[in-house]
Amino acid sequence: MPELRKDPVVGRWVIISTERSKRPRDVFVLSEDTELSGRECAFCSNPSDYPAIFTLSDSSNPDRWHITVVPRKNRILQIEGEINRRAHGLYDVMNGIGAHELVIETPEHILNVADLNVEHIDKIFSVYALRIRDLESDERLRYVLIYKNYEGRGKTGTILHSRSNIIALPINPKRVKEKLGGAKRYYNYHERCIFCDIIQQEKEQAVRVIDENEDFLAIAAFASRFPFEMWILPKQHLCDFYKMDPASYRNLSTILKRVLLKIKVGLNDPPYSWVLFTAPFRKKKRPGYWMTLEEDFHWHIEIIPQLTKIAGFEWGSGFYINPMPPEDAADFLKSIEVEV
Amino acid sequence: MPELRKDPVVGRWVIISTERSKRPRDVFVLSEDTELSGRECAFCSNPSDYPAIFTLSDSSNPDRWHITVVPRKNRILQIEGEINRRAHGLYDVMNGIGAHELVIETPEHILNVADLNVEHIDKIFSVYALRIRDLESDERLRYVLIYKNYEGRGKTGTILHSRSNIIALPINPKRVKEKLGGAKRYYNYHERCIFCDIIQQEKEQAVRVIDENEDFLAIAAFASRFPFEMWILPKQHLCDFYKMDPASYRNLSTILKRVLLKIKVGLNDPPYSWVLFTAPFRKKKRPGYWMTLEEDFHWHIEIIPQLTKIAGFEWGSGFYINPMPPEDAADFLKSIEVEV
Repeated sequence: MPELRKDPVVGRWVIISTERSKRPRDVFVLSEDTELSGRECAFCSNPSDYPAIFTLSDSSNPDRWHITVVPRKNRILQIEGEINRRAHGLYDVMNGIGAHELVIETPEHILNVADLNVEHIDKIFSVYALRIRDLESDERLRYVLIYKNYEGRGKTGTILHSRSNIIALPINPKRVKEKLGGAKRYYNYHERCIFCDIIQQEKEQAVRVIDENEDFLAIAAFASRFPFEMWILPKQHLCDFYKMDPASYRNLSTILKRVLLKIKVGLNDPPYSWVLFTAPFRKKKRPGYWMTLEEDFHWHIEIIPQLTKIAGFEWGSGFYINPMPPEDAADFLKSIEVEV
Repeated sequence: MPELRKDPVVGRWVIISTERSKRPRDVFVLSEDTELSGRECAFCSNPSDYPAIFTLSDSSNPDRWHITVVPRKNRILQIEGEINRRAHGLYDVMNGIGAHELVIETPEHILNVADLNVEHIDKIFSVYALRIRDLESDERLRYVLIYKNYEGRGKTGTILHSRSNIIALPINPKRVKEKLGGAKRYYNYHERCIFCDIIQQEKEQAVRVIDENEDFLAIAAFASRFPFEMWILPKQHLCDFYKMDPASYRNLSTILKRVLLKIKVGLNDPPYSWVLFTAPFRKKKRPGYWMTLEEDFHWHIEIIPQLTKIAGFEWGSGFYINPMPPEDAADFLKSIEVEV
């Protein structure tokens, strides 16, 4: 059984694999998506190796799938069992209960989600919403983390099919807690949502806006840690992504595709990651310190292109030096013309 | 003038270069130590290009230096000027005031500090202590961050001389605040230092201890984010590194050299980083929320070997999956025999 362990000083929960059979040198080859690397794409060559948790069929051809959700093969969380919070001397531990799923975003061997059409990206968002609703019914789970790591064109020898990841957890990730805590402090002081205020200020100043449509705003973050770091913010205040009006999916897909194409075209198809920040589940049985009000959090997406070497001290210190002013990053990306 | 900008939600200060002349694509080539990359080592070929802030001479040969501290050429902080805290709408900004120094650790072209002898490493620690004392006299500064990024043998074409970095800041880095806050909460509850308690438990359990001598303990951290992540803890409670009894330098150098050699020999000379966590300056004029007591913080060093690919989502979410149990990491490193 994998373990969730809490750093006793800073309070961060970490998943630790407890398989004792691995030799230390094995960590060199343990990468996040090993089953997807190699000369053949596992999803193109052996799709039946992956029994689906959920499949969205092509409406014009019911035998063909559009998007499928499968369990991770090298999953590090386990859905069966009890959480069993316990002490280990002064340390805190619980069982690594949770879900670890891959969303295979297309049957075709397309690498970058930016190369899918907007209608298709809509459906990916609807699949996320369905998966979150399903996972919410599990009383043990508190948070669903949805993210994507795209490798870019730089790497040779690996063939990585367009996919995203869903991790459902019995705890809130540290950065989520920080965002919830910061947004709540602002709300307690101002009685307004900080993200709504950011949207208003960014629209007025108009120096960090990269793209905009009726429902969404894409900005270069004011205190970006990395060059070209950006946020996609829904204009309508809502703390839970999965409760978004489905009528807005099209505008979300459009702005996501547009900014990802701007990164691809303008920055030479680099690796990037995005993370979806939504409110934690609000369960009556376990209200918890991090319980959010409907008013004080605002779901959003953070996108980080990986352009610069990440120095280890930044991991260690939490201190970042960004050589690219966000205003210049926004100027540049705004100027890149893309068709969606 | 570079800017320090605060993330309005999570409260992290970030340094942002505000030079408008750079083209966006320039960030691809902006690496942390550009002046040290290339076919010739800048410190071997043109040492006079670097006017020293401080030099420690070789006692047997006064014309020859042992260790020298120079300003960073591509420095992003500026020592001259006022901090000028100000609002930018709802955002917080201050001038990028501070110091940015390189400690050139040896006149010889040695890459890994683990290959210097223990007497020499002693002197590097004494230079850090002298620089911190000097920087403390600047009323504008709150924290001195000392760290090292070692590149390993894997990269070709770059020649990087053994050096470490000193960054003096008018703010406390986010991770430092988290450590201070966590240690203070523990102290308020237990009236004991959490690091002292960790040392006692780790010695009793003896499953994560990698190395130990009279004054120091090296452990694989219980909730390690990365494989082989380790902490070096002084056994004597002290919040400020630079107030350490110089008689203990030898044992610090010895344990650091031993664990770095274990990493080099056992893990095939990988890149690594370390960060020194010491208490912030405690100045009467600006007590601040993060003021530490002498009792509640305990200086230490964190070492992170860079073995696995760092996925972008970990940056975004603050959630880590570590495939290597710290107990196995400690077992393995403990078994690696090294001579110092």
